[in-house]
Amino acid sequence: MINAGVLGATGYAGTELVRLLSGHPEVNIKLLVSHSYNGESYADIYKNYKQILNMECEELDVDKVAKACDVVFTALPHGASKSVIPELYAKGLKIIDLSGDFRYNDAGVYAEWYGEEHSAPELLDKSVYGLCELHREEIKNTSLVGNPGCYTTCSILGLAPLLKYGLVETKNIIIDAKSGVTGAGRSLKLQNHFCECNETMKAYGVATHRHTSEIEQELSLLAGEDIVLSFTPHLVPFNRGILATMYANLKKDTSLDELLEVFRKFYKDEYFVRVCEKGELPEIKNVAGSNFVDIGLAVDKRLGRVIVVSCIDNLVKGAAGQAVQNMNILFSLDEKTGLNMPGYYI
Amino acid sequence: MINAGVLGATGYAGTELVRLLSGHPEVNIKLLVSHSYNGESYADIYKNYKQILNMECEELDVDKVAKACDVVFTALPHGASKSVIPELYAKGLKIIDLSGDFRYNDAGVYAEWYGEEHSAPELLDKSVYGLCELHREEIKNTSLVGNPGCYTTCSILGLAPLLKYGLVETKNIIIDAKSGVTGAGRSLKLQNHFCECNETMKAYGVATHRHTSEIEQELSLLAGEDIVLSFTPHLVPFNRGILATMYANLKKDTSLDELLEVFRKFYKDEYFVRVCEKGELPEIKNVAGSNFVDIGLAVDKRLGRVIVVSCIDNLVKGAAGQAVQNMNILFSLDEKTGLNMPGYYI
Amino acid sequence: MINAGVLGATGYAGTELVRLLSGHPEVNIKLLVSHSYNGESYADIYKNYKQILNMECEELDVDKVAKACDVVFTALPHGASKSVIPELYAKGLKIIDLSGDFRYNDAGVYAEWYGEEHSAPELLDKSVYGLCELHREEIKNTSLVGNPGCYTTCSILGLAPLLKYGLVETKNIIIDAKSGVTGAGRSLKLQNHFCECNETMKAYGVATHRHTSEIEQELSLLAGEDIVLSFTPHLVPFNRGILATMYANLKKDTSLDELLEVFRKFYKDEYFVRVCEKGELPEIKNVAGSNFVDIGLAVDKRLGRVIVVSCIDNLVKGAAGQAVQNMNILFSLDEKTGLNMPGYYI
Amino acid sequence: MINAGVLGATGYAGTELVRLLSGHPEVNIKLLVSHSYNGESYADIYKNYKQILNMECEELDVDKVAKACDVVFTALPHGASKSVIPELYAKGLKIIDLSGDFRYNDAGVYAEWYGEEHSAPELLDKSVYGLCELHREEIKNTSLVGNPGCYTTCSILGLAPLLKYGLVETKNIIIDAKSGVTGAGRSLKLQNHFCECNETMKAYGVATHRHTSEIEQELSLLAGEDIVLSFTPHLVPFNRGILATMYANLKKDTSLDELLEVFRKFYKDEYFVRVCEKGELPEIKNVAGSNFVDIGLAVDKRLGRVIVVSCIDNLVKGAAGQAVQNMNILFSLDEKTGLNMPGYYI
Repeated sequence: MINAGVLGATGYAGTELVRLLSGHPEVNIKLLVSHSYNGESYADIYKNYKQILNMECEELDVDKVAKACDVVFTALPHGASKSVIPELYAKGLKIIDLSGDFRYNDAGVYAEWYGEEHSAPELLDKSVYGLCELHREEIKNTSLVGNPGCYTTCSILGLAPLLKYGLVETKNIIIDAKSGVTGAGRSLKLQNHFCECNETMKAYGVATHRHTSEIEQELSLLAGEDIVLSFTPHLVPFNRGILATMYANLKKDTSLDELLEVFRKFYKDEYFVRVCEKGELPEIKNVAGSNFVDIGLAVDKRLGRVIVVSCIDNLVKGAAGQAVQNMNILFSLDEKTGLNMPGYYI
Repeated sequence: MINAGVLGATGYAGTELVRLLSGHPEVNIKLLVSHSYNGESYADIYKNYKQILNMECEELDVDKVAKACDVVFTALPHGASKSVIPELYAKGLKIIDLSGDFRYNDAGVYAEWYGEEHSAPELLDKSVYGLCELHREEIKNTSLVGNPGCYTTCSILGLAPLLKYGLVETKNIIIDAKSGVTGAGRSLKLQNHFCECNETMKAYGVATHRHTSEIEQELSLLAGEDIVLSFTPHLVPFNRGILATMYANLKKDTSLDELLEVFRKFYKDEYFVRVCEKGELPEIKNVAGSNFVDIGLAVDKRLGRVIVVSCIDNLVKGAAGQAVQNMNILFSLDEKTGLNMPGYYI
Repeated sequence: MINAGVLGATGYAGTELVRLLSGHPEVNIKLLVSHSYNGESYADIYKNYKQILNMECEELDVDKVAKACDVVFTALPHGASKSVIPELYAKGLKIIDLSGDFRYNDAGVYAEWYGEEHSAPELLDKSVYGLCELHREEIKNTSLVGNPGCYTTCSILGLAPLLKYGLVETKNIIIDAKSGVTGAGRSLKLQNHFCECNETMKAYGVATHRHTSEIEQELSLLAGEDIVLSFTPHLVPFNRGILATMYANLKKDTSLDELLEVFRKFYKDEYFVRVCEKGELPEIKNVAGSNFVDIGLAVDKRLGRVIVVSCIDNLVKGAAGQAVQNMNILFSLDEKTGLNMPGYYI
Repeated sequence: MINAGVLGATGYAGTELVRLLSGHPEVNIKLLVSHSYNGESYADIYKNYKQILNMECEELDVDKVAKACDVVFTALPHGASKSVIPELYAKGLKIIDLSGDFRYNDAGVYAEWYGEEHSAPELLDKSVYGLCELHREEIKNTSLVGNPGCYTTCSILGLAPLLKYGLVETKNIIIDAKSGVTGAGRSLKLQNHFCECNETMKAYGVATHRHTSEIEQELSLLAGEDIVLSFTPHLVPFNRGILATMYANLKKDTSLDELLEVFRKFYKDEYFVRVCEKGELPEIKNVAGSNFVDIGLAVDKRLGRVIVVSCIDNLVKGAAGQAVQNMNILFSLDEKTGLNMPGYYI
């Protein structure tokens, strides 16, 4: 059994980790750390856990974590992660960090998009970008995983085969992404008030959202050249899920059948990636609550353009689920372990 | 392993059965019967099952069912159930029927509330009302379970201790219940159109809803006298869940602490019933997706009245989850098997 | 033209007042007072007003209000209202207060339910309870209206004819009410976060909600005897609207036709009260955005009980709309003026 | 007063016409035509109209329409419109058609995108595309208006200034649009069932949606060259509203300030177009229920790309509101008449 701790256990990503870890057959949750809820029973904060989980939240004590745990998940705001992780790392723990702090190869890119210097740049060489489908081998050999962002997971996996095989132009790539409100976190802001985000939607962070840099880093690696692209997130009135609609110009006339074949081949060993049948496109309800990524394609022959639609649950494949998938890789378990549930649909 | 078949696998109760059975460690799903989707892949109808379940829907063939299955779940409209079940019963199958057809002790009550004669009244003597917490011992000894209605499960469990111990008057019991839209089923009706039931709510079936008779049957048994009561269902804009607010006059001055003690004692061995702490009341999000029943109490001293609030997921404890719990009882498994997940919360 | 000011213009009741007053053909809005948004353009706070309303929020200046306005609407939290209103009243302004501070005939009842002494009890003799349909003549002769609560308007109008004509027992009256989230106001609380109140519902304030006392005051007046009753509010995931389901025992056998006749007669001159046809019950969508109260009845013959279902928009007939209706009465306008719009439906 | 008739009065566009026309100070509604609800009271179908509108639906009788009405709105499915309009036109009526049948200059384009020959191509020369802000002068001189589609209104107005002034490349224009469920109409389809479209979203009609051709027609006219572009609609779980996020490459380095200036100038006399302040982007709640179009801009300097976000209410500016605006133009009224309400916001 793997002994696991969760730092930041009471945010939405944190509670999703608790959901997945408490149902994982190879995991014992040893520690739930929460500064704001220190000393409170987890089942009092999230009453859905009554009868299921009988643990108290506690303050962070690095020595205690190191003694009790084999792996620690840090579901903290960026900045918070990078200040605590060096200590945890020094203790020899395996760490899966859900913030943006350890997703970058280049501290300069981090500084540019996060507006502050990285305080532990030396660890960026040790950390691995935890997009399992693309970096599995490196993940196996690290003890610090920078778990990818939600929008980025959805976007990168939808575009990866096209860029890997050079099928599309690297200019004029557009990612138009839509997220449910859990993506905005549990903190109290006017824009997250029910009446302010119900029956409406909006774009935000246009041309400035940090996930842009993460997507560009990974797609550039795949393409072997520097890619810059448009990424536009939107806030939509449902709890869970991201849908990304992506546009790219085909280098040459390529049929939908050919493209689907490329995607199926690229993902043929990837359990969590489901390529839709010809003529079908994904919907969030099919992936909500699950670790699946559903990807569908359309070709606009008039324009020589491929449109990719990709869906995930932002809290699962976009956060806690991928983190558990990373843990499964780190501990040489079957990647599906504890993650093999269907989407909610209803 | 238990070999199971689902009749009516493509309605909402049916697909919830598929969700629970496909995740149940002791079950093999052998057959999915659907007249409307005969020949179609289940994962084409409910695309959340892609990669998870690879089965085709088929027409009902009683011999085939009898040969392949140990237990069959009938998630059919009432009437449809009672015409097919005698044949299945004759084959010696264990049957868990989710319709209203086998919930009654008295064919006359059925005829009165369903507006038609019962076509298999002889089986009513064999069938057991499958409210697990109240009829566990009888369930163990039957092979035909009439799985309770959603509103009824929520209501009966919320009131049972009060009537069992004679704490409240049997006159003036009021049940005001609210259900999500999955309770209305998957069929196309104007009232289920998104724009017709979003941002609104309504009462329906006032003083005439069939579940009234089921609640009265069970509460009368508990009280040892005939009970008639008000039951009012409402349609509310969310997918899953029922919340019942119930009112009863206390026979004598009884404190909230005393009542809570009675409830805790009554349900002390019942894993799926969670009695809320003093001062707390249940919310649907804590039970949605789970088999739990959350029950909270308040006492209005001015009025000598107890108010009970009870919550379930209408598709789980109110249908498919309780059906699986019944199966666990029928096959002498731990009742929690395959049912031990927390509510969704988000 | 009537010169009007709104104190507390940026809360949800305040902005609904702005909506109704800005479309009212006999009103000039002269002042929008908001402490938190002092100096900001109203159309920057509520961007739906761009091009429609070009005004800045300002701090309260009683002299300025008195000089500029004929009538002032106070949409402030209770407590805040009672500290500012004596000054405004002394200036000879007509005042319509949307808080609970001037709804009571008896300062003792206020103290009991609000947990503090009333600081201006002398004004309670001057103030009139502004439920237009019941107190129209008194309203004409006051200059201080205590505008009723949302739940109370919905509940009282649904029960008034029954109590006025002594058709029901005064014991065992139950009001089970459901409100949209605008009823919880615009302030930031975890329970109003989209993800916390979406896809769920709950009861709150059971046996303790302040509106109970307001309902009891008015129904006691109608019945000519002291009435105490159960009132249970619930929070439901839509923006606007209240639906109250109410139960009362008939004193003698009375048919639905007879009861409908009583209601139609009682409300025959009341434009804003719509009694549903026999067999029909109201839905929130028909009143949302409008000043209508829709009331439907059912009789449970088995139990000798009448069930009344009543719907309003909590922000309109439950707050700002009724306030404007009160203003129309105070200024001898046709009561429908500025209020004659249909419900939103979609 | 203008005597108006509505054909197809019971669909969502039809009932929105009824809402706007019944509140319009210069209009008498003379006729409501509905085949499916022939003989029924309108207030029985849409109960929000009780006390507001006392009319019965009737079958179409062209002579009766011609005698009673000055203007007729046809809110019928495409195809239905083009078979009835020639007769109405021959009677000398002014006609505002909300279907796609009279939006095209070229019957060939219609045939290509609608998959059938146009049965009244001779009327295409008479009809005017009713996008008021762009075709006002022509509208004044026609008696047959092809009222624009919802997506198209939102998209064209958001891009018009850029193409009119040649600021962007005509290649690589992407329109990613999101619509509420009223856009799918009132007909019963599984995808419109509450539980099927709640808590999810999806793209549909990718690369094939008919509105593409309408957008291309108008943008080509503005640009003076043939434009083909990507248009992707999505279905989102709210009732009303469209948000379009649009991407175009700037021909040369242009600042956000310069672009905003161009938009403000282009729309300076257009009451219903609101250009957002620098740094602000529109949200659906600000336009829902109103005839406004809110447009916001962002520039991605890294990419030399402008992102335009445009919002309307699909039923108002996207259908019934624009139809009334067209009527106001046809009858030389102030365009705002009957249309000057703020967005709902809540």
